[in-house]
Amino acid sequence: MIKEFMGNDFLLDNEPALRAFEAADKMPIFDWHCHLSPKEIYENKQPADIAYLWLGGDHYKWRAMRSCGIDEKYITGDASGYEKFKKFASIMPCLIGNPMYHWSHLELRRYFGIYDILNEDTADDIWNRANAAINAGGFTPRELIEKSNVSHLCTTDDPADSLEYHILLAQDDSFKCKVLPAFRPDKALAVEAPAWKPWLNDMENRAGRKIESFVALCEVLKERIEFFDSLGCCASDHAFTYVPYEEATADELEIIFNKGVNGEAISLVEADKFKTALLQVLAAEYAKRGWVMELHMGAMRNNNTAMFRKLGPDTGYDSIDDKEIAQKLSRMLDSLAVEGNLPKTVLFTLNPKDNYVLGTMLGNFQSSEAESKIQFGSAWWFNDNIDGMREQMKTLGNLGALGKFVGMVTDSRSFLSYPRHEYFRRILCGLMGDMVAKGLYPNDEKALAKLAEDISYNNAKKFFGI
Amino acid sequence: MIKEFMGNDFLLDNEPALRAFEAADKMPIFDWHCHLSPKEIYENKQPADIAYLWLGGDHYKWRAMRSCGIDEKYITGDASGYEKFKKFASIMPCLIGNPMYHWSHLELRRYFGIYDILNEDTADDIWNRANAAINAGGFTPRELIEKSNVSHLCTTDDPADSLEYHILLAQDDSFKCKVLPAFRPDKALAVEAPAWKPWLNDMENRAGRKIESFVALCEVLKERIEFFDSLGCCASDHAFTYVPYEEATADELEIIFNKGVNGEAISLVEADKFKTALLQVLAAEYAKRGWVMELHMGAMRNNNTAMFRKLGPDTGYDSIDDKEIAQKLSRMLDSLAVEGNLPKTVLFTLNPKDNYVLGTMLGNFQSSEAESKIQFGSAWWFNDNIDGMREQMKTLGNLGALGKFVGMVTDSRSFLSYPRHEYFRRILCGLMGDMVAKGLYPNDEKALAKLAEDISYNNAKKFFGI
Amino acid sequence: MIKEFMGNDFLLDNEPALRAFEAADKMPIFDWHCHLSPKEIYENKQPADIAYLWLGGDHYKWRAMRSCGIDEKYITGDASGYEKFKKFASIMPCLIGNPMYHWSHLELRRYFGIYDILNEDTADDIWNRANAAINAGGFTPRELIEKSNVSHLCTTDDPADSLEYHILLAQDDSFKCKVLPAFRPDKALAVEAPAWKPWLNDMENRAGRKIESFVALCEVLKERIEFFDSLGCCASDHAFTYVPYEEATADELEIIFNKGVNGEAISLVEADKFKTALLQVLAAEYAKRGWVMELHMGAMRNNNTAMFRKLGPDTGYDSIDDKEIAQKLSRMLDSLAVEGNLPKTVLFTLNPKDNYVLGTMLGNFQSSEAESKIQFGSAWWFNDNIDGMREQMKTLGNLGALGKFVGMVTDSRSFLSYPRHEYFRRILCGLMGDMVAKGLYPNDEKALAKLAEDISYNNAKKFFGI
Repeated sequence: MIKEFMGNDFLLDNEPALRAFEAADKMPIFDWHCHLSPKEIYENKQPADIAYLWLGGDHYKWRAMRSCGIDEKYITGDASGYEKFKKFASIMPCLIGNPMYHWSHLELRRYFGIYDILNEDTADDIWNRANAAINAGGFTPRELIEKSNVSHLCTTDDPADSLEYHILLAQDDSFKCKVLPAFRPDKALAVEAPAWKPWLNDMENRAGRKIESFVALCEVLKERIEFFDSLGCCASDHAFTYVPYEEATADELEIIFNKGVNGEAISLVEADKFKTALLQVLAAEYAKRGWVMELHMGAMRNNNTAMFRKLGPDTGYDSIDDKEIAQKLSRMLDSLAVEGNLPKTVLFTLNPKDNYVLGTMLGNFQSSEAESKIQFGSAWWFNDNIDGMREQMKTLGNLGALGKFVGMVTDSRSFLSYPRHEYFRRILCGLMGDMVAKGLYPNDEKALAKLAEDISYNNAKKFFGI
Repeated sequence: MIKEFMGNDFLLDNEPALRAFEAADKMPIFDWHCHLSPKEIYENKQPADIAYLWLGGDHYKWRAMRSCGIDEKYITGDASGYEKFKKFASIMPCLIGNPMYHWSHLELRRYFGIYDILNEDTADDIWNRANAAINAGGFTPRELIEKSNVSHLCTTDDPADSLEYHILLAQDDSFKCKVLPAFRPDKALAVEAPAWKPWLNDMENRAGRKIESFVALCEVLKERIEFFDSLGCCASDHAFTYVPYEEATADELEIIFNKGVNGEAISLVEADKFKTALLQVLAAEYAKRGWVMELHMGAMRNNNTAMFRKLGPDTGYDSIDDKEIAQKLSRMLDSLAVEGNLPKTVLFTLNPKDNYVLGTMLGNFQSSEAESKIQFGSAWWFNDNIDGMREQMKTLGNLGALGKFVGMVTDSRSFLSYPRHEYFRRILCGLMGDMVAKGLYPNDEKALAKLAEDISYNNAKKFFGI
Repeated sequence: MIKEFMGNDFLLDNEPALRAFEAADKMPIFDWHCHLSPKEIYENKQPADIAYLWLGGDHYKWRAMRSCGIDEKYITGDASGYEKFKKFASIMPCLIGNPMYHWSHLELRRYFGIYDILNEDTADDIWNRANAAINAGGFTPRELIEKSNVSHLCTTDDPADSLEYHILLAQDDSFKCKVLPAFRPDKALAVEAPAWKPWLNDMENRAGRKIESFVALCEVLKERIEFFDSLGCCASDHAFTYVPYEEATADELEIIFNKGVNGEAISLVEADKFKTALLQVLAAEYAKRGWVMELHMGAMRNNNTAMFRKLGPDTGYDSIDDKEIAQKLSRMLDSLAVEGNLPKTVLFTLNPKDNYVLGTMLGNFQSSEAESKIQFGSAWWFNDNIDGMREQMKTLGNLGALGKFVGMVTDSRSFLSYPRHEYFRRILCGLMGDMVAKGLYPNDEKALAKLAEDISYNNAKKFFGI
């Protein structure tokens, strides 16, 4: 039997799957990790056209176009929106098996009501209809968020950020979705990076005083955590190639701090000592406040020097690293747990070779402080596809308690990306339905609906305490 | 079509699979690697209740409960057996996709005749019926083993062990299953560990003389191998994060030995030199006697210091390591092969990223000394689930000769764990049936039955020479 | 439903798959990476029997026989062809799940017209019929190649090679398949290997002058590239455990060169410096000429010292390495890209743990110079099986543009190996058909036929510029 392309039963192959998705589909969205701009949400501008929405900043689509040999002119260059859209449409048939093929068609359907298949032949017609829809209204950031039934979302914010737009949004009762900051101190930890010193200066300006020691830095960051907390922050977020673990004395940390201030060379071990100590200080603060600590591992960034010079970061030149992660991650989490400072934690990996490492790491540090206190983050970025998501969920099912999973995040910079939650929910319900169909789990509609609802929304709501 | 939950065709989706399983199901069990206590088998005590059998020592179940946020009181604490059982029942619905969901229900069915689904609602009734069954008899260690049609089992024993219960069991004709010791000298190799010196003292006491050199240690261990051999031992077992390979001179080994005796710090390279040399000596002895050498790689143990202090080892705080293993393993096996000292060997990994490394490593050292002289051990511990077992068998099928596979072991501490052999056999036959159904292998009932019987029992019997 | 064993719908489970394969099956073969001997093609000798064709040099079959405990006498020893064939036939039933089971039966069908199942019982009859077919003609190298509809093939040739048989073949109009050399300078890069100095002498003899510096070596290799290019070469090929990246000064390179000449010990870092610099020089030449650079990563060779002494390399004693590859590979490709010297490139890995690393590495260096300028090489060697090929194609589909994939190569030393292209095409079309059947891609026969034809032939033809 050949199923209809992305029909109502998309990714749902049996009755139990369809019933579970009915339950999941009713749930609101809590997008607890994304890269949306609070400024853009606050300003709520009308988008120009579908090229602006789709191709203005989405490095997934840019990479796909580059893979098909499209000239940079039509990607980040000075071609018109119409030209860029046409080029993108022309590569669609080659993207068989790519999640973007599904995301794009889901977005056309859910936001534009367009059910046609996008390719070179249909591009003009879809261009016209999509832009007519945009002009007819309903496509500003806030409208898209509300139309998507998003109850809460967490942005990604530097400790030195003023959070001015979060404050403004919190004062605006007309917008129902709660926009919460999340604390991302990557720049603070990267003492070896050229950007550290400028960041420290920004932080001094924000704090209104000089920061002249490691200890002083910790104090300032604690104050910022307090400030973030006052605005409803419930999550921090750290990106690492691997989670470091190197012990250091207080004196060593001050020496490394000073090297950073003076722009002296810092060795890998020194950098790891600094990061280890600072993460330990921060984690204790997160734990104290019931925040969730998200650890994202495995990204290798800015691989193409020439294009970095032209376009900067986050433009589609990142890929997956393959370092050993198990031992240091274990030592870091243990160093927190033994002091009673281990917060609720979500472990994400970009490299699927680590799935079983993380899936079993969770179990080392679970406790009665929360249901699945240590979580295995959903398949992320390059793994955010049917295979990757099924694999992550099967791994969690085999090794832990899938029923307590906090589920999906978009991790996105696009206001059109919420159908990825629908995609996730369909994959989840499809997977559970397959288990029932194979006799691996009882055909208990109520139990399956509860699992679907919990993993889609309730678990995350409870876990983050919103 | 929705299959019945764990019906007769559980994991068997077509006629060839069902026919193959009929053949497999008739075979006895040779459980050639487990952690059962020979003392408990000898003493053969009546268990108190199902909580004792299920939750008294099974760290798989403990981990699952911790993952769901259950308080330690109900896991290893002082709650009653009934309370613990109730808590365990309450988390069952969350364990969708977890092999324990299947193991638990298989155990209820095969030993207790209970076909209900375990959850909070059914817990009381199942508690009562299971305990009534236990009280009615048939649940002592020996009865469970015999009921499970186990012909032979190999325990896991330290070289310093007296093997007194093996001797007693060998003298007891009333018990049909042969309980054989297996030689596990991990403590002897771990010269860098605090436990090494106390172990050496135990070994001296057992040997009745001082052990004052590396050479003397080798001599004593050879005597113990001889002693184990006299009691029917046919297998050794080594656990490594990675199989080490560092060459050393005789003098260096004595220096490292003395450091161990004196409690001096031993570097990683020194420890690996010691382990390498000792493993080479031991392997030659195994080879001489036709023993099988089992190498278990990839476990990272005792990750949670606070819980280790409370509960000790093997309590559910282990996870998967991710070291590079290929080159050193190759060098170690080659160093044995080139001297004619490579025993029949089984390579196990806990990290599925290593499946293809091991699956191809086998081929480097096969020879006419045995059919698949180098074996790829079945999916183990965290991989002992449908996905893990299918993956291991598909890997072996793709890279070697699945038909010569020595198959399943429980690796268990529980007397109720034999249905894991049924689980394995169903997965094996399901996999072969799927191949036939897809036209990938001829629909030859006789050939499939032979494969099923061989992999379930005959191959291991021949390989271990029992 | 049980499908016929390897019937017409082998690996094709629905109409879209069958239709796509019809399109793929009509395409010629461009086997752009193989290890066939141009001498044997030129000499075009009549083979003695099927044992010569199957067991004369195929280390895949040798490994399988060793895995089943067959004595080396019947593998590479002095047993008769008939005896060897019988032994091979006897192990066939054990090879359930092994691609060789399919390859062997495909070869019997496509070249010999024999549809029986090979095992001990049928061995004599198949032996007689196969040899009768061979004697009846059509089994010389050129006949097998032409019968297989091969339009072009690229052999694997050392820079010091005279290419005399390529020259002779190019002059022979009677043979329709173009036999092109490919440039494989592994020996030139391996300055740390004992074979380097002898290779340098060969190279000096070929060049007709002394090579007394790193700079001089680069000059000679450039001349050889020019010579290869004049004979239609369009591809280079490098084998690495991992792609190295270590920067060095010109002086350092000359010192390392001299160490190599003098047979002095060369450290790993020195060897990597030498390889890095030489690969950078060569890659620039490839880029200049529009050649494709193939990088094969992850093989660990000659693991069995005793058998290496007896049989030499490429006799079935290689396996998969597991080094970290991401960072150095990124740095190497970037060092080329930033200078404008990055050629069209194909990244192959032997270790499936690297699939996602490579699948995302591609995207870092794509450009409008070619459609998928950086390619993910098809599942290779130990991965050349249904699972491995599906996995590689799903990875590429998820992460890049499957529609631009340059597809299959045999990588083979056997003239009977072309059905592996059929195998690949069936797996490709089966995969695409499954996507359509599940509603993941539109049921568009024309689009699917184009994808099938492009990936089977057109993409590679365009990419290599033949």
